[in-house]
Formats: sequence, structure tokens, C-alpha cells
Amino acid sequence: MSENLVELTATEAAGKISRGDVSSEEYTKALIAQVGSIEDKVGAFQHFDPEHALAQAKERDAYRANGNALGPLHGVPVGIKDCIDTSDYPTENGSKLFEGRRPYKDAAVVTKLRTAGAVIFGKTVTTEFAFYHPGKTKNPHDLERTPGGSSSGSAASVAAGMLPLAIGTQTNGSIIRPAAYCGVFGMKPSHGLVSRSGVLSHSRTLDHVGPFARSLDDIALILDVMTGYDENDPDTKPYVVPNFLAGVKEKFPLTPRLAYVRTPVWNKADKTTAEAFEELAESLGEIVQRVELHEPIYGHAWDDLRAIMSADMAHHHGKIVGRGGDVASQTLKDFIAEGRKVTATRYLEAISQAKQFTTALGDFFDQFDAILTPATTGVAPMGLGATGDPAFCSLWTLTGLPAISLPLLQGENGLPLGVQLVGPMRRDARLLRTAKWLLSHLSHDQEAELA
Amino acid sequence: MSENLVELTATEAAGKISRGDVSSEEYTKALIAQVGSIEDKVGAFQHFDPEHALAQAKERDAYRANGNALGPLHGVPVGIKDCIDTSDYPTENGSKLFEGRRPYKDAAVVTKLRTAGAVIFGKTVTTEFAFYHPGKTKNPHDLERTPGGSSSGSAASVAAGMLPLAIGTQTNGSIIRPAAYCGVFGMKPSHGLVSRSGVLSHSRTLDHVGPFARSLDDIALILDVMTGYDENDPDTKPYVVPNFLAGVKEKFPLTPRLAYVRTPVWNKADKTTAEAFEELAESLGEIVQRVELHEPIYGHAWDDLRAIMSADMAHHHGKIVGRGGDVASQTLKDFIAEGRKVTATRYLEAISQAKQFTTALGDFFDQFDAILTPATTGVAPMGLGATGDPAFCSLWTLTGLPAISLPLLQGENGLPLGVQLVGPMRRDARLLRTAKWLLSHLSHDQEAELA
Repeated sequence: MSENLVELTATEAAGKISRGDVSSEEYTKALIAQVGSIEDKVGAFQHFDPEHALAQAKERDAYRANGNALGPLHGVPVGIKDCIDTSDYPTENGSKLFEGRRPYKDAAVVTKLRTAGAVIFGKTVTTEFAFYHPGKTKNPHDLERTPGGSSSGSAASVAAGMLPLAIGTQTNGSIIRPAAYCGVFGMKPSHGLVSRSGVLSHSRTLDHVGPFARSLDDIALILDVMTGYDENDPDTKPYVVPNFLAGVKEKFPLTPRLAYVRTPVWNKADKTTAEAFEELAESLGEIVQRVELHEPIYGHAWDDLRAIMSADMAHHHGKIVGRGGDVASQTLKDFIAEGRKVTATRYLEAISQAKQFTTALGDFFDQFDAILTPATTGVAPMGLGATGDPAFCSLWTLTGLPAISLPLLQGENGLPLGVQLVGPMRRDARLLRTAKWLLSHLSHDQEAELA
Repeated sequence: MSENLVELTATEAAGKISRGDVSSEEYTKALIAQVGSIEDKVGAFQHFDPEHALAQAKERDAYRANGNALGPLHGVPVGIKDCIDTSDYPTENGSKLFEGRRPYKDAAVVTKLRTAGAVIFGKTVTTEFAFYHPGKTKNPHDLERTPGGSSSGSAASVAAGMLPLAIGTQTNGSIIRPAAYCGVFGMKPSHGLVSRSGVLSHSRTLDHVGPFARSLDDIALILDVMTGYDENDPDTKPYVVPNFLAGVKEKFPLTPRLAYVRTPVWNKADKTTAEAFEELAESLGEIVQRVELHEPIYGHAWDDLRAIMSADMAHHHGKIVGRGGDVASQTLKDFIAEGRKVTATRYLEAISQAKQFTTALGDFFDQFDAILTPATTGVAPMGLGATGDPAFCSLWTLTGLPAISLPLLQGENGLPLGVQLVGPMRRDARLLRTAKWLLSHLSHDQEAELA
């Protein structure tokens, strides 16, 4: 029974709970059992209290039994990265500098999840300050490899079947990279689509919150809950947001056009990855056009992101890290020291450049539905001392464009390799539909091959 | 006839034009005649073409004659500061570096004015780059004195009866100060209420656009037209904006409470000004409570504004000023050089501080309807080589709070002295009502004294 339940997608589980085929308590117990059998090896959780998770599940069941209308995530457990505030669990931002920190209220996005009926299952491991220095989490596909970061625990918990859904954050490559390394779906929605209020602040320009799941429908399901205007995040906008789940279920009206993009850091891709993508692009035929983003125009984007991120992190974290003596990692201290040297004019120029990239790439989407590009430079690297290279995520984070990693390919040793699709600004629903088309197209191809 | 017409407020003129009591052509001709008689002395205009103004007025009359519905400013001439783009007049930003610059389209706020039926009469003098180095304008009350800056021509043209309305910009004290020196109403609306798209950019954090007029109703009339969401200005918000003119015409429900605020730069006020305000506060009795904003908490606001403004100006103007050799003033070059030295962390800290001041002062408005404080340190100073001290405007610009200067007092030599009211964020309508109450209260007092 438990074995079956942990394999459910969130959409399936929500349907069963809503119909009464399974209770939130049974489902949550199955996930707790899965944690019991595998968490010792994976180390995805920073804070987890099975009693507290079960209590919420029982409360959800009682609520349903009383005949109340149910939210779209009613009774479904969700993992929350430990740099996102929760009123019931500690939030320690992956650093002893925040040891025992207990926020008095939920982050805006956690409130939205609770309102939709979700069970806040536990807090997933983040790297130190959601930056590079790794936490304890291992890659469920190979325990000697990094799960990626900084949303290490969110990606690993979903990959290991301990949760159907988790949320994380990205300031450079912190959702897309661990999703790709762990072989799950991960999405960085458009900048400003999900409120960052109550989330550890690195950079107003670069910070994003997004979900992890094992199906594309699940990404749409939770995105419907997470998005929306919040007056406490000045970059969210009171626009109407489309229904994402309804969108991915619609038939795609036309065959999409994809730009297979090689950025100026393409040479970082390892041989297997480069070959796998060449092959993928080839197999998609006329749908795909090859596009090179040239060094003279796009080459400085990586430095621009670094200037913004280091200065913003020095601003937000310089004092607490400075007071912390040897508690913070040298990596973090060095980056903050670098940020202190950035001038305001360099910082402002980098932000202007980011806007120009967003505009330039916006024109691009007049011709293409999405950009197709690797999520990472290769499969999850060996070793647990680092979390891998975010270089293939930087341009899409700097520009705020929505990006999703799809677990479609395999690299060396059969390890997962993520296909990244990038869409036009605030057209996240269109990006999800394009992703759905690609998934469906490739599975038909596979079926055809098998037949 | 002309003499009478130029004395009309904009509200009166709009009413007469709308009813057909006077044509836009007649009214515009009267203003042109006034320009003919006084502009040589005052020098309020950078670009003015009477033929073009008259052609617009005739077009407005023809439009009315055809039975069309009329906008609230139909046929009413408005002056536009020469750092605000116009498609029909050059926009030279007060600098030879922009000589002959002809924008291909109107700034968003100019489009709004045209849509409301306004006649875009001419471009009013701005100081160099809307910063400190003065233009040619003189104070209509005393031609040997500065009109204030940077919106020198907008304030002077309205004070001299050449226009009923003009718009200007403020990044430190550039609306409130010239309004006070020239004895007219001037308003800096809440940050984000009026779009800055198409306006010379100094600083996203500090830039504001606002109106000048000879009556409070006129300020409300034009504000109704100027405000609103613009997707090209990321700080405007798609909120519903109240009808300001209807608001100022309502009876004030309760006697307002005012905080007579002395900031940490109070010692800059000259003796006459300090005495005039003590007397005003005294005469208002229990309505007013004296509040000191203390140095340890608020003292660094002036440095914070300077860090933000200098860095932002270095970012926006550093290149063009650098290329300009000796064309730019030393004042401007020095400020840009200062801005280049600001670090990103200092800049970001100053912006955080600004937000904290806004929050702190927001709590303040739970107890008071508005802050009552001098608009300037004294009357317009002698000489045309400088534009006076903006120190009494800085805190309200940094915080983005709405501020209005009311021509209620007289200082030395009978010259105008502005009373500044500052209101809660985005409660501009409430601020206008409080201002209306104060005007009405003081005029009743005067009547009582005369009786």
C-alpha cells in the first residue's frame, strides 16, 4: 500500500484525497515511512517532525469529513526549503548563524500553500545561506554525488519519493540545477510571479521561488497556488494569472518552434551533454532552429549577475556574516568581500544590462515559443564538497525569464540530465504548454521506437 | 478682457471653455499676450511657439464645436518642464549637451494631458540636467532673486500669470522649493503615482513628477489627469486612484490633527521663517502638536539621499557628461564624480534606510493627518547664481511621501513663504483635503479678524 502511495504524483494524490479514495493521514503515513527507509542515506530534511505532519493531515481529513470545500492541494504534503519562513518549523537558512531561529509567521508563499490545504511536511536542506557551501544532502541516484544546490533537500526529497512536491529558491541556478541532477521537474517562474516575502533575501533583482515535482502537471498544480500579487514583494504585480493546470491540459494549438540555444559559456558543457543535446535537436527536426548567443553581446551577463549578486548579498548578509567569526564558510565570506568592492555605478549598470538582455530576448520570442538548452553542464558531479556549476542557469536568472528543467535525458552512468526550456517573460503558462508538447512528442517518439 | 482671463484659475478657465463662455483660442491669446508683456523679464520659457499653441487651441475649439465630449483640461494651456519629453517641442534638459534634441514621442504624463484636452503651451526652463546650475529664469516677485529650481520656469510662469498650470519634476526639492519661492501651489505626489516614463531619469528611487497652479482645486484637477498606472514606469501601480477634485470639494469630516515637525536640519531655517512657523503653529492651537524628528534617528537621511542621487546620476549621466568636456557645469561634474565613489553596499543601505523612514513616518500618520513644516529655509534668496537650499524637502523626497507647498505666509520684504504639508504614502487625496481644510480655516480666521 505505502509503496504505491509514494509513487503517486501530487495531482493523483490530491484527486484520491478529494474523492475519499485515500485519506491525507494514510498518504502522509506512507511518505513518513519512506522517510524512515531512506532519509538516513539521502539527508534531505533539516527539520522534520512526523507527529506534526500527521497532525496536520488528520486535521485536513477532519475538515473534509465536515463537508467543507477543498483547496487544490488539500491533504498533500509539501516540503519547504529551509530559507523560507515557516511559523511551525524553525528556519535556519543553512547556517549556524541562524540556529534555532523560529519565524513568528509564514512566508507569503507558505501561507498560500496552507490556504490551498497543503500539509507543511518538513523543512528541506539548503546550502549555507542558499549559496554554494553544501549541506548534508546526497543525490538519491548516487549517494556519492552532489544533489546540486542550493535547493538540495527539496530536489532530493522529491526524487527519493519522500514527497510529491517541494519548493525552493533560485538566485543563480538553485532550482534548475538540483532538479536536473536529481532527475525531477523544477521550475523557476518569471521574476515577480511568486512573492519572496518571508524568504531569505539575496537580491531583489535575482531572487525567485519555485517548485519541484515528479510530473509537469504537478508543477502547474502547485504554481496555481504559489503565484499572485503580494504587496510585500514590490516586484509582484496585481495582474490576472492564468490557470496553469488547465493550460497544460489543453491541446497545443500549433507545433511549437524551439530555439536550440548555445550561450557564450557553451564550452562548459561536457562531451556527453553536448552530444545528447545535438542528438535531441537533430531528432526534433524542423521544429528546432539553432541559435548562437554571441560573446560580444551576451558574454558579460555572467559578470553582471556576479556584480549584482555579490553586492546584494554583501548588503543583506555582510553584517551578520561579519559578526559570525569563523561560523560562515570562506566561500561565503570571499563573495561578500567581493560584493563590498562593487561600486554603485557598476551595480546599476549591471541591472540596466539585465533589463536590456530581457528586452533583447523578448524580441526573440516573437519567433520561438521557447529556448531549448541544457539545464547543467553535465550530470551531477562526484563528491559532496561542492554543488556543481550554475553557468547554464545564469542568463535566465539575470533576465528573470521563466525556466523549467525537464528530466528527459540521461548522461554518463545513466544519470539524469535536464532539458531546460526558457520562455517569454510572464508567459509561464505558455512555457508549461510548450513543455507539455515536448514531453508528449518525445514519449510518442519513444513509443514509436518501441513498437 | 485679457487681463481678466489671465487671472482665472485652471478650474475656472476649463469651466468657461466647456460652457462656451470663452474659447480656448481667446484664453490662449490672453496668455500669449501676458507672455509678450512679461516673459522678457522673467525668462520662464525655453521653447515657446505662440503659433503652435494657438493652433492647438483652435483645434480644441473645433473639437468642442463638433459636439464631442470634453476632457477635464479641454482647451487649457499647460507648461511642461524642459526635461519632460514632448513630440512637438524640443526637450533639451537644460543643457547644451542636448541642444536640438527632439523626442519622437511624448512622455506618458504629456500624453495624459493631451488626452484630457490640454494645450501644450511651451517648454519651461529647467536648471542644467534638472540639477543645481541655474537657467535664465528670474523670480517674478523680485527679478533679482532666484525662482528656485530645478523647475524654475514652471513655477515662474504660473506665478507670473503666463500659465494657469505647469508641470515639473522633483528629485530633492525641485517642485516644492520653486513653488514656495514663487508663491504658488506646487505638489510632489506620492512616489509612483505619476509615471516618469519619458522624463529625464535621475533616480528611480527619488524622481517624482508634479504640478504647479494658483489654486488647490487646480492641483487636484490636473492630478486627476496626471496619475495612474504605466507599465513603462515599474514604480507605478495599477491601483484605483481616487478622484482628487471631488475629494477637495467634500467637506472635511473631522478637524484634522497636524504635526508641526522640526527636522534635524531645522537650524537652517532663517529667523523670520522660524518665527512665522512658530506663530502659525501657535495660532492653530490644539489642532497642532509639536514633534521633533531627532538627529540620531533621522539625521543621516540627507546623506542617504545624496548617496542615492549622486550614484544614480553618475549611472544615468556619467557618460554623456564625461563626453561633453567643458559644456557641463563644475557643480554637475563634481556631483557625478562623487557618485562614482559610492559603493553598491552604501547605495543599497541608503535605499533600505529610505524604506525604513517611510515605514517609521507611516506609523506617525496613525496619529496625524499631515505634517506641517516649512517648504524652504526662507524666502527666495537674492541672486541668480544659485537656486536655494532644498534641505527642507529632502526627507519627504527620500521617503516618497506626498508633499504640497501652500502659498500661505509672507517672509521678509513681503516675499512668499511656503507652508509644506506632507501626507501618508499614496494618500494624496487625503493630503489635498487636509490642505483644503487648512486654507479654509486660515481664510475664515482672516475674515474674522477683518470683521
